[in-house]
Amino acid sequence: MYEKWMQTAISLAAAARGQTSPNPAVGSVIVKDGRVIGMGAHLKAGDAHAEVNALHMAGADAEGATIYVTLEPCSHYGKTPPCADLIIEKKIKKAVIGSVDPNPKVSGNGIRKLQQAGIEVITGICSAETDSLNEYFFHSMINKKPFVTLKTAMSLDGKTATKNGHSMWVTGPNAREDVHLDRHLHDAILIGVNTVIHDNPSLTVRLTEGGISPHRVILDTQLSIPGDARLLHDGEAPVLIICGKHADQAKEEQLSSLYKVNVLRLNAETIEIEHVLKEMNNLDIHSVYVEGGSEIHASFIREKAVNRMITYIAPKLITGKLAKGVTGGEGIDYMDEAFAMTIEKVEMIGPDIKVTAVPKGDE
Amino acid sequence: MYEKWMQTAISLAAAARGQTSPNPAVGSVIVKDGRVIGMGAHLKAGDAHAEVNALHMAGADAEGATIYVTLEPCSHYGKTPPCADLIIEKKIKKAVIGSVDPNPKVSGNGIRKLQQAGIEVITGICSAETDSLNEYFFHSMINKKPFVTLKTAMSLDGKTATKNGHSMWVTGPNAREDVHLDRHLHDAILIGVNTVIHDNPSLTVRLTEGGISPHRVILDTQLSIPGDARLLHDGEAPVLIICGKHADQAKEEQLSSLYKVNVLRLNAETIEIEHVLKEMNNLDIHSVYVEGGSEIHASFIREKAVNRMITYIAPKLITGKLAKGVTGGEGIDYMDEAFAMTIEKVEMIGPDIKVTAVPKGDE
Repeated sequence: MYEKWMQTAISLAAAARGQTSPNPAVGSVIVKDGRVIGMGAHLKAGDAHAEVNALHMAGADAEGATIYVTLEPCSHYGKTPPCADLIIEKKIKKAVIGSVDPNPKVSGNGIRKLQQAGIEVITGICSAETDSLNEYFFHSMINKKPFVTLKTAMSLDGKTATKNGHSMWVTGPNAREDVHLDRHLHDAILIGVNTVIHDNPSLTVRLTEGGISPHRVILDTQLSIPGDARLLHDGEAPVLIICGKHADQAKEEQLSSLYKVNVLRLNAETIEIEHVLKEMNNLDIHSVYVEGGSEIHASFIREKAVNRMITYIAPKLITGKLAKGVTGGEGIDYMDEAFAMTIEKVEMIGPDIKVTAVPKGDE
Repeated sequence: MYEKWMQTAISLAAAARGQTSPNPAVGSVIVKDGRVIGMGAHLKAGDAHAEVNALHMAGADAEGATIYVTLEPCSHYGKTPPCADLIIEKKIKKAVIGSVDPNPKVSGNGIRKLQQAGIEVITGICSAETDSLNEYFFHSMINKKPFVTLKTAMSLDGKTATKNGHSMWVTGPNAREDVHLDRHLHDAILIGVNTVIHDNPSLTVRLTEGGISPHRVILDTQLSIPGDARLLHDGEAPVLIICGKHADQAKEEQLSSLYKVNVLRLNAETIEIEHVLKEMNNLDIHSVYVEGGSEIHASFIREKAVNRMITYIAPKLITGKLAKGVTGGEGIDYMDEAFAMTIEKVEMIGPDIKVTAVPKGDE
C-alpha cells in the first residue's frame, strides 16, 4: 500500500513542478485507518512546505497517522521551521519517504530526527520517481552546477533555417508548446547574443494557462547585445547577461540600469561554459534550457556540459549548402571523437519527432 | 478464411522479394477441402510463375480446388505461357486474388479469362499487403519511372561526416545491415560521381547470406569518374554511368569497354533527375535507392523526385561549422518552400533511430 499513497504524493508534487524553484517540488499525503486525512504540496519558495500543508489539513487527527512525503523532511531552519519538528509535534506514528535529501550537508538528518523521536521511518518508496521529480535540483545539489538540457529543432535534413536565415517555423505548434512547457520547468533559458541579434526573441513562457518564465541568460563576450532587444525591456523575467573581462564598461552600466537586467562580468577574456554553470549555480539556478544558436550548442558539447538533449525533427527538407545546421564550432576530425549519446525516448509530437538523448554512460 | 491462405501466399512472395526483378514478387497457395495441396512463388525472372509452381505441386488434385495468388494471373505470352490458361486447364474451381495487375494494358484480362471459363473469382483479399509487396513494381508500371527511396544517415546534430570528411561510421552495424537489405530490395543504387571519388564504394549487397547486388548507377556529367574506381572493376553488378552531352568521348569508350559497365550519354548539358528516371525505367529498373552525396540528395528533392525517405539518426554529436550535412544545393529562401513530408514510421535499429517519411499527400 505504501506505493499507492506515495503515487498520490508524487502527483501533488508533479503538479507544482517548475514553480517551487529554488526549492524542490514536494508532495505529501497523511493517511489514518486507510483514509486520507491530509494532502499538500510545496507551491512556492518561501511558502509552507508540503508536510506543513498536509498536517494543517489533518489537524488534530494527525496523531497516530502515517505521513507520506516524496522527499526527506527538512531538519533545519530555513525560511520556515523544520518540518521534522512539526511531524514529531503532531504525534505522527510512521513516515514513508521517497527520496533522501541530496544535499550532503543535511542528507539523512531529517530521517534520524524522526527516528530519535520514536517515529517508524520507511524510505526508498517509488524513489526512482521521486528522484525524477527533482532531477534538476538533485543534480545541482550533487554537482554544484545546473542540469543542462540542450534543445534543438531541425528538419529531416538537419537544417535549422533556410540559407538566408528564415526559420519560422521548423516545427509545428505542438512541438513549440512542448518547448514552452520545458522552459517553465527549467530555472533558466540560455542563448548566445547572436540569437538575440538575429531573432530578437522574448524567451518567455507562453502556455495556454500562462506559466512561469525562467531567468533569461545571454552569453555575450563583448556586450554587443542591441540596446533595444525585446527581452531587455519587457520586464517579464530576470535577464542575466554574462560577458568577458574586456567588455565595454559604459555598456555594462547602461544595461545594468534596466529593470530586472543584470550583467555578470567574468574574470576571463572568453566565456567558458564550465565557468558560466558555476556562476549560475551560485545564483540558485538549478537547471538551464539551452536554446542555441549553433555556436552555443557546439560550446556546450565541446565542454561535455550536456546532461540531456532534446531534438525536435520536422518532416520537411530545407536543403541548401549554406542553410544553417544544429551545431557550429570547430568540430572534430574523426568519428570516434564524436560526443556519444544514448537515445532515451523517441516520440511523435504532432507531425514532428521528439528525440530525448543522454550522454552515453549517464543512462 | 480467404485471409488466412492469402497470408500464406504473401509470405511466399515476401521471401522472394528482391530476386524477381524485373518481374513482381508473387506467391500462390492451392487449397482443397481445407488442406494445402500446392504452394509456390515466382523465384526469378524467366523461371516459372508462382501459380505454375503451385499447380505443379498439386498435380491432378488441382481439379476442383481453390487457388490463392497475390497478383492477378497473367493472360499473355511472356517468357512463359499464360498462367490463366494453365489454371483453366487444371480445372481449378475458384481463384482468390490479392492485387489486380497494375499494367494498364493487361489489367483485369487474367480475371476475365478465368471468369469466362466458369471459375469463380474473388478479388481484393489482403490487397493493401499484396500491393505493398510490389510497391516499386506497381509504381513504375503506373508512373513509367522507378520508385525512388532516398537514404541518408546523420548524427543527432545533422552531420554526415566530420569537417575533414571522415564518416566511418555514423551509424552502427544494425543500421548498416538494414541498408544492405534495402539495397537488395531495389533494382538500382544511385550515387553521384563525387561520392565515388571521395569514398570509392563497392555499392554491393553484403548481407550475412549474400544477397543480390542491384545495378549501380553513377551520375557523372563530365565523366570524371576515376578509371581505377573499385566498382568499375569488381564485376559484382552492372554499372551504369550517366553523363551529359559534352562528356569526353575517349573516356566513354574506355569505360564502356569494361566488363558490365555501360555509359549512357544524355542529350543535355546537365543531368535532370526526371530524365535519369525515364532512362532507368526503359532499362526495366523499377526502383532506385539513392545514397548520396548531399548534392544528389538536393537534386532529387528539388525535382520532387522522392517517393520515400529513410533517415538513420545516430545518437552522437559531430559538430563543426564545416562538417558536411545531409543536403547541399542552392536551397530555398523561406520555410514554406520546404519539401513537406509525413513521418510514416519511427523505430530503433540498434542504438540508432530509423525514420521513414513519405511526401506529404502520398500517405
